[in-house]
Amino acid sequence: MQPELSAVMVRDAAARIKPLARRTPVFSSTSINRAAGVEVHFKCENLQRGGAFKIRGASNLILSIPDEDLARGVVAFSSGNHAQAVAIAAKHVGAAATIVMPEDAPRGKLEATRSHGAKIITYNRHRESREAIAAQILKDTGATLVPPFDHPLVMAGQGTAALELLEVVPHLDAIIAPIGGGGLLAGCAIIAKALDPDIHVFGAEPERANDTSLSMQAGHRVEIPTPDTIADGLRSPQPGALTFPVLQRHVEKVQLVSEDEIRSTVKLLLTRMKLLVEPSGAVAAAAVLHHKLPEDVRAIGVILSGGNLDFEDLITY
Amino acid sequence: MQPELSAVMVRDAAARIKPLARRTPVFSSTSINRAAGVEVHFKCENLQRGGAFKIRGASNLILSIPDEDLARGVVAFSSGNHAQAVAIAAKHVGAAATIVMPEDAPRGKLEATRSHGAKIITYNRHRESREAIAAQILKDTGATLVPPFDHPLVMAGQGTAALELLEVVPHLDAIIAPIGGGGLLAGCAIIAKALDPDIHVFGAEPERANDTSLSMQAGHRVEIPTPDTIADGLRSPQPGALTFPVLQRHVEKVQLVSEDEIRSTVKLLLTRMKLLVEPSGAVAAAAVLHHKLPEDVRAIGVILSGGNLDFEDLITY
Repeated sequence: MQPELSAVMVRDAAARIKPLARRTPVFSSTSINRAAGVEVHFKCENLQRGGAFKIRGASNLILSIPDEDLARGVVAFSSGNHAQAVAIAAKHVGAAATIVMPEDAPRGKLEATRSHGAKIITYNRHRESREAIAAQILKDTGATLVPPFDHPLVMAGQGTAALELLEVVPHLDAIIAPIGGGGLLAGCAIIAKALDPDIHVFGAEPERANDTSLSMQAGHRVEIPTPDTIADGLRSPQPGALTFPVLQRHVEKVQLVSEDEIRSTVKLLLTRMKLLVEPSGAVAAAAVLHHKLPEDVRAIGVILSGGNLDFEDLITY
Repeated sequence: MQPELSAVMVRDAAARIKPLARRTPVFSSTSINRAAGVEVHFKCENLQRGGAFKIRGASNLILSIPDEDLARGVVAFSSGNHAQAVAIAAKHVGAAATIVMPEDAPRGKLEATRSHGAKIITYNRHRESREAIAAQILKDTGATLVPPFDHPLVMAGQGTAALELLEVVPHLDAIIAPIGGGGLLAGCAIIAKALDPDIHVFGAEPERANDTSLSMQAGHRVEIPTPDTIADGLRSPQPGALTFPVLQRHVEKVQLVSEDEIRSTVKLLLTRMKLLVEPSGAVAAAAVLHHKLPEDVRAIGVILSGGNLDFEDLITY
């Protein structure tokens, strides 16, 4: 039985993951503030080890696995950034990693995961169940599953991004993060509300991957068909069983952005901030830059959650 | 009569420019170190205010102009980044800025300069002399010229980039910076050698804009035809009268890189480091990544000098 997610777990995670996760910088820009009409502080997880926040959760879980279990390896299923993170953390502790990835994952993400020594098994996103494939491997090997979001230690690890952000900019009156399965936002919400009960917490999703928005409105988890969005890291068809109750309790609203809004935000962050942010990583910024927040939000922290984008994909924008 | 460039002037500049220039971060990457075969520390002047190191020199000079002269305004000629820097610094002190820019300067650089309230006069790089145009304006207005490199206060300002870099990473055994007119490298060399007389100082130029390399070999300043290189900020046809003696005294060698090496470095810095660096700003990194340094250099500081690049130009790489 896993403990329930808490702010103390996020603080414990911050200490545990230090050898593996970078303390990423927080940037702001006068011209972006002017464009957004609000003071924006970007937490640059695109500059994180492995190119995304995912190393925070993956290393928090993997560094908590007992040695005798580690010897049988770890398994993960992921569209890319979680895969790379599990590969890096597994290598760090000397455990074998098997990663189940969609065959149409960005080439750079596949190659990077392989470069960290992980074994990769690909599957067809539309015809096969990655959970079933992973379950079979777990049965065969006795390895430990490292879920991409639905685990208290993973959520707690992801929450360290907001902890660091609020340590640098304590006066924020809101934070916003993208939602795939909801692990990043759940962890960030728990610690942000513990540090400042009055802080507003928002999520952001592509219009085409609005499973959490629909679930929040319905009051229960809603599953949608496999989303087709440029934000390839946010294609989970529903929020997690463990993440969703946290989001329900702490998240004020999920803001939706169009594919064009995501693309233009990637371009703006690139040309104005000089930062490469992948579409999934730019979704929260897109909501802020397209004025989707309530007017009383004057200073907001935005998680730029990842930067792994093939050059060949970027130039099609 | 201007004082001669010295390490003390660089330290003075560091104090003077604080209200205008950012202390930019220094980044490194395991995968870049592996590719380069050497420990590389990148000083991220692409994240500087105005998108390039130029604000350091421009603000150091402009903040030193007496009030009675400031009232008559400032003038600069520049392919872009210096223009933006002068516009920003002039606005800060409430002085009118007139900038003489080539008509084929990157669109983003023209627009950004205009957005800071400067008056822009364009000219044809191949048929007109920007110096003559600027001289006429100075005669008509009594404004103060802010030269892009050939002024002790400008060189001293640019040197603060190396000062900050060596404060963060004191154990470097070499530094390298791109050379346009040589102001950045001259300032960096003076302070680096003062902090560590044993440090190696290298310059980097495009093969197609090798005026400083030729000048170093000849032992005197050599002028070449207006260079045609993708590194639009390094198209000065010869080193400066004031910068060149400093480079001669302190720079071990000027490394040359091809246009393809510059392009591939821009792509590598973008996809691996998640940083947008313009071609001119990537020339020193290109030399390091293409193994042009002596083998005994084990830890090097690289100035990524700017990041102002139109998206439309980037996607042609």
